Amino acid sequence: MGYRYEVYLAGAEPAQNGCVNGAGEGSDIFPRSLLKQLDWADYADKFRPAITAEQPGDGLLVRPLQKEDYDKGFLQLLGQLTEVGDISREDFLKRYEAMTACPSTYYPVVVEDEVKGQVVGAATLVIEQKFIHHCAVRGRLEDVVVSDDYRGKQLGKLLIAVITLLAKRLHCYKITLDCKDVMIPFYSKMGYTNEAGRANYMTIRYD
Amino acid sequence: MGYRYEVYLAGAEPAQNGCVNGAGEGSDIFPRSLLKQLDWADYADKFRPAITAEQPGDGLLVRPLQKEDYDKGFLQLLGQLTEVGDISREDFLKRYEAMTACPSTYYPVVVEDEVKGQVVGAATLVIEQKFIHHCAVRGRLEDVVVSDDYRGKQLGKLLIAVITLLAKRLHCYKITLDCKDVMIPFYSKMGYTNEAGRANYMTIRYD
Repeated sequence: MGYRYEVYLAGAEPAQNGCVNGAGEGSDIFPRSLLKQLDWADYADKFRPAITAEQPGDGLLVRPLQKEDYDKGFLQLLGQLTEVGDISREDFLKRYEAMTACPSTYYPVVVEDEVKGQVVGAATLVIEQKFIHHCAVRGRLEDVVVSDDYRGKQLGKLLIAVITLLAKRLHCYKITLDCKDVMIPFYSKMGYTNEAGRANYMTIRYD
Repeated sequence: MGYRYEVYLAGAEPAQNGCVNGAGEGSDIFPRSLLKQLDWADYADKFRPAITAEQPGDGLLVRPLQKEDYDKGFLQLLGQLTEVGDISREDFLKRYEAMTACPSTYYPVVVEDEVKGQVVGAATLVIEQKFIHHCAVRGRLEDVVVSDDYRGKQLGKLLIAVITLLAKRLHCYKITLDCKDVMIPFYSKMGYTNEAGRANYMTIRYD
């Protein structure tokens, strides 16, 4: 509980019942300690007021995805991003386990409103192993979403910063994303660029 | 050896020593049988003369990456694509093992010139697991390269077709790629499209 306590010390108000609603770090899909090892210097000037993964705002907690997030609205939140469908608890846990079966690959991060016990933001870092660049690893920012009810709290920017800094911490030689064109200015502010002559992205859909 | 024999029956001339140079299917990084399960109807009109993964051309074999490809010029081939660096056998095998440790994720395919015992083409399908779209999987086409000495044999197109059909076979809801703008016409011919308003790709580099 040490980490959660620090979060409260940092200025958030305590949860309704005087203790946290979370499930501890037991089912964290990756080691939570990684989120304490990020170098926020790159984004020091991006947040007004200043927030970080450790101090995301009153009553909020940034942490790895947990199994318990099935009951905290994680999938419903993703439904604000795109079509999700009816996913049973069994299917959710199967996917969770399949992700953990791939070492050092999936880093889904969520923002929880600890007062409500609800997941209100999410983004995922996916790591790809390469042979090129001295057997490097490459990061991808995927599935960024913040609940409509939590706009204006800089949580989108915060999640992007967390994922981007996590990629750096995990020694990715680059991190990339694909996004709708309307989002380019937003991601540009967070340091992403459309590289000249190679900012192009193509798709075949089967569904 | 059944599969290789079929390849020779299909029209290729036998290797110099009357048997194959390959190492069997033992160290295939994914089940070779998958390459026999592709539906080539999608690409029937794309190749003149007609070639497929099973009939790639005289003396050529399309197969999964193997450990033995360290000695068959696989890394030197990747060096025609981008910077690779000096990778020791130990580091290569470590990366190979790390990829196999991620179930159903990495599908590197190579074209071998069996006469020379050299890898002359390569491309990789990387699968990403999602929660969205009913816990779907998404494919990515990565690191496509054909040796300069083997241009004009449709091997680039062949590798793209193999990876794309493999993604379909593995039930990806979509497959995507990022490429230099100059490559857009090439990939367009293979069925990839720049979707309106969402064909954009952004990067942060750390190296």
